[in-house]
Amino acid sequence: MDTVILESPADKKQKGTKTKFVFSFHEGDGKNKQLLGGKGANLCEMTQIGLNVPPGFVISTDACLTYLDTNNKQLPAGLIEEVKDHIKHVEVASRKKFGDPTNPLLVSVRSGSAMSMPGMMDTILNLGLNSKTLKGLIQQTGNERFGYDAYRRFIQLFGKVALGVPDEKFDKHFEEVKKRAGVKVDVGLNTEDLMEISERFLGVVKEYTGKPFPEDVFEQLEIAIKAVFNSWMGKRAIDYRREFKITPEMANGTAVNVVTMVFGNMGNDCATGVGFTRDPGTGENVMFGEYLTNAQGEDVVAGIRTPKPVVQLADEMPDLYKQLEELRNKLEAHYKEVQDFEYTIEKGVLYCLQTRNGKMNTTALVRTSIEMEKEGLITRDQALLRVKPEMLEQLLHPRLDSNHNVEPLAKGLPASPGAASGHVVFDADRAELLGHTGEKLILVREETKPEDIHGFFASQGILTSRGGKTSHAAVVARGMGKPCVAGAEGIEVDVKLRQAKIGDKVLHEGDYITIDGGTGNVYQGIIPTVEPVFSEELKILLSWADEKATLKVYANADTPDGAEKASSFGAMGIGLCRTERMFNGTDRLPIVIEMILADTNEDRQVALDRLELIQRQDFKEIFLAMAPRPVTVRLLDPPIHEFLPNEDVLRDEIEHLMHLKTTISGVNNLFSSLRLLNADVSIAEKSSAPFNGKGEELIEQAIEKKQKMLKKVHELHEVNPMLGHRGVRLGITLSQIYKMQIKAILEAAADCQLAKADVRPEIMVPQVVKTEELIEVKKFVNEIQAEIEADKKIKLNFKFGTMMEAVRACLEASELASVAQFFSFGTNDLTQATFSFSREDAENKFLPYYINNGILKDNPFEVLDVKGVGKLMKMAVEGGRQTNPDLKIGICGEHGGHPESIMFCHKIGLNYVSCSSLRVPIARLAVAHAKLGESNYSSN
Amino acid sequence: MDTVILESPADKKQKGTKTKFVFSFHEGDGKNKQLLGGKGANLCEMTQIGLNVPPGFVISTDACLTYLDTNNKQLPAGLIEEVKDHIKHVEVASRKKFGDPTNPLLVSVRSGSAMSMPGMMDTILNLGLNSKTLKGLIQQTGNERFGYDAYRRFIQLFGKVALGVPDEKFDKHFEEVKKRAGVKVDVGLNTEDLMEISERFLGVVKEYTGKPFPEDVFEQLEIAIKAVFNSWMGKRAIDYRREFKITPEMANGTAVNVVTMVFGNMGNDCATGVGFTRDPGTGENVMFGEYLTNAQGEDVVAGIRTPKPVVQLADEMPDLYKQLEELRNKLEAHYKEVQDFEYTIEKGVLYCLQTRNGKMNTTALVRTSIEMEKEGLITRDQALLRVKPEMLEQLLHPRLDSNHNVEPLAKGLPASPGAASGHVVFDADRAELLGHTGEKLILVREETKPEDIHGFFASQGILTSRGGKTSHAAVVARGMGKPCVAGAEGIEVDVKLRQAKIGDKVLHEGDYITIDGGTGNVYQGIIPTVEPVFSEELKILLSWADEKATLKVYANADTPDGAEKASSFGAMGIGLCRTERMFNGTDRLPIVIEMILADTNEDRQVALDRLELIQRQDFKEIFLAMAPRPVTVRLLDPPIHEFLPNEDVLRDEIEHLMHLKTTISGVNNLFSSLRLLNADVSIAEKSSAPFNGKGEELIEQAIEKKQKMLKKVHELHEVNPMLGHRGVRLGITLSQIYKMQIKAILEAAADCQLAKADVRPEIMVPQVVKTEELIEVKKFVNEIQAEIEADKKIKLNFKFGTMMEAVRACLEASELASVAQFFSFGTNDLTQATFSFSREDAENKFLPYYINNGILKDNPFEVLDVKGVGKLMKMAVEGGRQTNPDLKIGICGEHGGHPESIMFCHKIGLNYVSCSSLRVPIARLAVAHAKLGESNYSSN
Repeated sequence: MDTVILESPADKKQKGTKTKFVFSFHEGDGKNKQLLGGKGANLCEMTQIGLNVPPGFVISTDACLTYLDTNNKQLPAGLIEEVKDHIKHVEVASRKKFGDPTNPLLVSVRSGSAMSMPGMMDTILNLGLNSKTLKGLIQQTGNERFGYDAYRRFIQLFGKVALGVPDEKFDKHFEEVKKRAGVKVDVGLNTEDLMEISERFLGVVKEYTGKPFPEDVFEQLEIAIKAVFNSWMGKRAIDYRREFKITPEMANGTAVNVVTMVFGNMGNDCATGVGFTRDPGTGENVMFGEYLTNAQGEDVVAGIRTPKPVVQLADEMPDLYKQLEELRNKLEAHYKEVQDFEYTIEKGVLYCLQTRNGKMNTTALVRTSIEMEKEGLITRDQALLRVKPEMLEQLLHPRLDSNHNVEPLAKGLPASPGAASGHVVFDADRAELLGHTGEKLILVREETKPEDIHGFFASQGILTSRGGKTSHAAVVARGMGKPCVAGAEGIEVDVKLRQAKIGDKVLHEGDYITIDGGTGNVYQGIIPTVEPVFSEELKILLSWADEKATLKVYANADTPDGAEKASSFGAMGIGLCRTERMFNGTDRLPIVIEMILADTNEDRQVALDRLELIQRQDFKEIFLAMAPRPVTVRLLDPPIHEFLPNEDVLRDEIEHLMHLKTTISGVNNLFSSLRLLNADVSIAEKSSAPFNGKGEELIEQAIEKKQKMLKKVHELHEVNPMLGHRGVRLGITLSQIYKMQIKAILEAAADCQLAKADVRPEIMVPQVVKTEELIEVKKFVNEIQAEIEADKKIKLNFKFGTMMEAVRACLEASELASVAQFFSFGTNDLTQATFSFSREDAENKFLPYYINNGILKDNPFEVLDVKGVGKLMKMAVEGGRQTNPDLKIGICGEHGGHPESIMFCHKIGLNYVSCSSLRVPIARLAVAHAKLGESNYSSN
Repeated sequence: MDTVILESPADKKQKGTKTKFVFSFHEGDGKNKQLLGGKGANLCEMTQIGLNVPPGFVISTDACLTYLDTNNKQLPAGLIEEVKDHIKHVEVASRKKFGDPTNPLLVSVRSGSAMSMPGMMDTILNLGLNSKTLKGLIQQTGNERFGYDAYRRFIQLFGKVALGVPDEKFDKHFEEVKKRAGVKVDVGLNTEDLMEISERFLGVVKEYTGKPFPEDVFEQLEIAIKAVFNSWMGKRAIDYRREFKITPEMANGTAVNVVTMVFGNMGNDCATGVGFTRDPGTGENVMFGEYLTNAQGEDVVAGIRTPKPVVQLADEMPDLYKQLEELRNKLEAHYKEVQDFEYTIEKGVLYCLQTRNGKMNTTALVRTSIEMEKEGLITRDQALLRVKPEMLEQLLHPRLDSNHNVEPLAKGLPASPGAASGHVVFDADRAELLGHTGEKLILVREETKPEDIHGFFASQGILTSRGGKTSHAAVVARGMGKPCVAGAEGIEVDVKLRQAKIGDKVLHEGDYITIDGGTGNVYQGIIPTVEPVFSEELKILLSWADEKATLKVYANADTPDGAEKASSFGAMGIGLCRTERMFNGTDRLPIVIEMILADTNEDRQVALDRLELIQRQDFKEIFLAMAPRPVTVRLLDPPIHEFLPNEDVLRDEIEHLMHLKTTISGVNNLFSSLRLLNADVSIAEKSSAPFNGKGEELIEQAIEKKQKMLKKVHELHEVNPMLGHRGVRLGITLSQIYKMQIKAILEAAADCQLAKADVRPEIMVPQVVKTEELIEVKKFVNEIQAEIEADKKIKLNFKFGTMMEAVRACLEASELASVAQFFSFGTNDLTQATFSFSREDAENKFLPYYINNGILKDNPFEVLDVKGVGKLMKMAVEGGRQTNPDLKIGICGEHGGHPESIMFCHKIGLNYVSCSSLRVPIARLAVAHAKLGESNYSSN
């Protein structure tokens, strides 16, 4: 099942392909990569825009296909004649002569297909060398050692690549000579050594091929061309194309590039160098690079001489520096991109050998984008498109100083980006306690649960030994913008002993560690971090993005602080404010538990009334922070058992209390006995205050309370909590909670409105599957709204809508839109339901296998599954808009911050995406990209 | 928001309605219920087919609407004249005269709209009575007491219904007279009492209305007609129409029926009776009913006289009996249904007062269907349609003898039909042990788990105190066709004490109980049961159904016995053979656990090889039992942790063993000490065989094994097992299991094929969401198939397909169909995923609330959710058939046995439904109904 199928040249012929096979760099079509290969087309383009490229020509891929189609591997008729013609032109241009013993023209021969296929075939350098032209080369360079070095290299490379002689045949002799000469590195060999090696290599070729090494330079060239053509159907190339799924439509056949060799080592008027048209580290608009005079490129690599910064060339060769400046301007003017180029100066002539778009870090990319737009080189759209949204990630988190040389202690999954150092702490309560003293902490847990939330607040970063990139720890940390390394399986946490084992190392509470959430590495001790900078250029770029985009970017934020942060990152609203996060504060959780344990509705209401006042204040602050932008508040979503302690913990606590009780009563009995013996026990009693009736009573009460909790935990236990009694199901059956939350939201809105603040709350119902559910909650809203409006004599301004996170909601979208004023896709849950994958279980058990074995291309919890989940979303958008064309639709799952997923959201016509604050800049750029890419995708 | 809107009579006029308002029973259109009301049309129809209906006429609904449309409530012009005309005709026909003092014509007046609205208005009987005609009535009947009784009833009824006098005004006087007369029941009153009551009632009317009771019979009639018309817009009627959503299109206005009163109590040539045209209990083709001579209908009700069976009439009034026979034949010939009719014989003349379709039990319905078809009364299609599929349920299970008078001890949900008695047993192991001795058992558990499966096999029925109608216990019991009462919350099971508490009663192991899975009742002791009969008539009916239907009916069966049973119920294949059921047998579970605990792949393979041999034998037997019908084998679906014991149980066991170990070493230490004292402990040692080194060692091994299990349980723990590591996910990542199962299936098939049996296995993969998963499993199949075919030199004949139970599978159906040869909808899981409802949690927590409060119409796990789940199914069918028009598609969820859901499956073009064996007959009838109902639904 080979995917590589050659198009028959006969077919091509019928299509009327012209029979010209060879193109000089002046005549080749710089855009026709199919015909000339990428490299060939590039050389043509460089030549034609006026860069001084060493003279040369390209033999087309058509020639290759025609050659491969012949049974006896004959070069197409006329090809050699064409090649010879072009060699003549090259001789004229280079003022050298192919095969000439005094002024020899040497060329490089290399393959090049339409797609880059690194390593498919080696380049042959210095073709045209033979025993006679060698003398010419030595004469030209005045460097005999260089001449023989070039010669022995050419014999080996040609022997191997063009004649098929195995490398080890040559290596054997090379090693023998090196040994005899007593040198360890190649550069230690002197001219005589290299002469001997050249002789031996000629002998190897003769022995292996049965023929002497070809002295005729045209014979060399013909053999080399055939070798390049044959390499297209070599095993290495076929495997490569299969591996990377390169079809004939993408690349068919290889071209051959024949280019004049130029030498930077022919004297002090020669040099070789590499350069960037701007500084790739900072983006500053200055030429950047290094060079060496009288040297070849490989001298830089060998490290014998230290290259000089390019500015020195201005002193050393002022005229050439000026030419280099011109080259730089030509390159940017033509390519509209920072270029990474290679050049050689041969006898005072500057040749440009290669150029390509320069790789830069994000800082430089952003700066050059802004500056190139200001210089008129590129448009704003182009400036926006130059920066891939994901690249902004680097700019938004503290990262480790790149100069550290510390080996990681352990490795986990990079679950939330950024780096942080702090004292190890093993539980959330402890973290909160230590956090108050201002300590920097890293919370280390086997895995985290909602009740650990205060520990997150108190810590600089989170490290878990279980769970994936979408585990609770990862999701919450990302939401808070704190670094997290998850699932570092090598770490064994022992909470009771307050220590963790990593192999034979032991981390104790208080030890310093550093985590890197961008790589997943965990280090012992403190490694300095670099703080992120939100540069002026980035701000400009994002403002351009905002102008361009149609999709709005909201943030997910649950607290007043979070809202401020979202705002500072440019969020245009809050798309998801999770009310349950507010329940987990240490001042709230006890009230929540009281509410859950309440025996009567009245008791429950007392607790809820207290919670209402707290939530109302939260909402007020969040609404005001965002005014006049919308704040979408999701009513309680998780099942209430998530607020109760874990069953095992409760059991342990009860056991411990029981034990304590026994001890106390034992001591009390002892005192009684002593008293019977008329002993004076008053001092002992005083010094053991807890050991009296009162203490026993308190312990009994504590036991009773814990047992009640345990009973409730059992009562509320669910087999599949993900699909259990939660969201609107809970909201309807235990309606007091939703009523409290709705009241808190609307009272907060009323307070703000009365204070003339233009707040825009939006009430969102989670887990909806039936329109009737939404109608039921709408009834609560209507009642409470009417009460408040009558009471305060105002008209409340808010929206009512639904999460779209259950499959059935998507299927019933048109009905839901008759009640909901907005939809918000919760793609985390929707993905779970669509795949029947429990995220937590999947990421621990089978998802890695699925991705590694190609059953899934991506983790669907990271990259939106367009084919499945996306289909449901599209149905829902169509259904909803059918009923209400103005329906506001957004997404608040984690995918809302993922550029590829944002592209899809744009495509299906959403109004906004909502993501964690830290991803807001990325999303802002991505929504602009989506808009700019509109023409690149069909609507299906 | 009143849904009752009257069509304006002006509108009606424009449509050219004729102005005739009154229709005699001879002229009215028996099909025009809109115009004549249901009752009126019925009387017309009865008259026109030649039944001797008492003469009368109908005043149309048009008259009613016209009347109501006038501001001053005037009867339409000419109406009274028409009525008087018709009264004349009635007088002729009845040979009586309206208002005549010697031979008075009395009539009943009653309302009747197009829709039955019971209780909307009372009937007025004996209209036409006044102080003069009363004498005539007494003369006619020769019964003065009867005359006054009729009179006082008429005054009260007319007073109340037509004149609006409150009942309590009359009741007061009635009670006074009764008190004075010293009687407790009405029949105790004598003529004089009734005369006094009549007088008093006349006074009441005069006092309340200010006018004397109308003596003019035409005035009585006019008042009555107006009262009936007015009743249409009375509060009672409006409320009723709103409640039952009766729109004007369904019924608009009421007709008035005026019918001659006939009396069965005018002498010994009079009688009254009720009859069925066939025996509604057995279906036998004989007249069935009772009568009383010289009596009115209410005499039967009052219970003063015992009615006689209708056959006695043949002796008593042979001629009339003959007329009754004729009536019966006419009724069946016309209505093509068994009729339930009422008649009165007045002075030797038989009148038919009413007829309607007779209600029958299923046995009778099936028998009459077959016989009426044979008699040529109805067609086969009609015969099939007479029996609603669900009704067959009664015929398929043992049921409690209806004569028992035992009060239930507790009540749960009717989770699997049928009744059973047996000894209480509280755990599966115990059940298996006792079952071997032939004991009848009822397994009583808090809830059941897969590891209890051997307990199901050993028991006659299952009773649980937790879980709903789709809990594990319910599903498995239904699958096995065993009765189950689930979620009987009043029962507290204590396994350790081997007892259960119900209130203050305690059930001990071994006590007898009886459960009725059809009602959910639980009884103490043994209540006799009646075995089901699969009658010849039922067999015929089902064979007709099979001929008619296009949808095939398969059964779900997991064992050779199950396959035999399925076959006996007429299953045309097995649609779901769950391989994991085979793992739970006591001879297999230990091997399965060994497989799960294996440390190396080699050890795992050893266990799997043993399992393979067992499964292979199972498959062989099942395939052969069904040959040449298909058997669809589902590869392992549940997560493997389901085969391990529960965590709590393991903990207890380990604790127990630890304790034992301590005890033993204590005893050993004691022996050692004694030995040091030179005591002779040999006898003691002998009598305590376990207390030696060997015993300790064994216990240590046991502890080690249990601890290993516990570790594995932890390792395999899942947060949401429903969405966890199961099905194809498990099959791919732990591929040895699937390979074993595939091998067992194909080897079994090969064995059968070699023995010339035409077996048709179909391999089905569960939980598929991506085509790549299916491709992966297909690879295993291909490899194993190739091996076996090469080895045995045969060509295996089987199919490969996928469950459609994850939402994403439905969305990717067109791709899946390129690999799968069949689809089978697993609507249980699909419903869970579509709703994001975990079945077990939903049915315990919020589903009852949802259904009781109208948020959901039905339990979606019982009735297929056409709008949500159905939409996905439809998409999948369309997608799959697009790729492969011949794709075989079925359903194997529980909905496959539900008639309404079957209708949907037929509609979207499935090929088969598969359900539990016991529901196969129901499904066979339902698929025929679906075919017959084809024209009744649109394809959208």
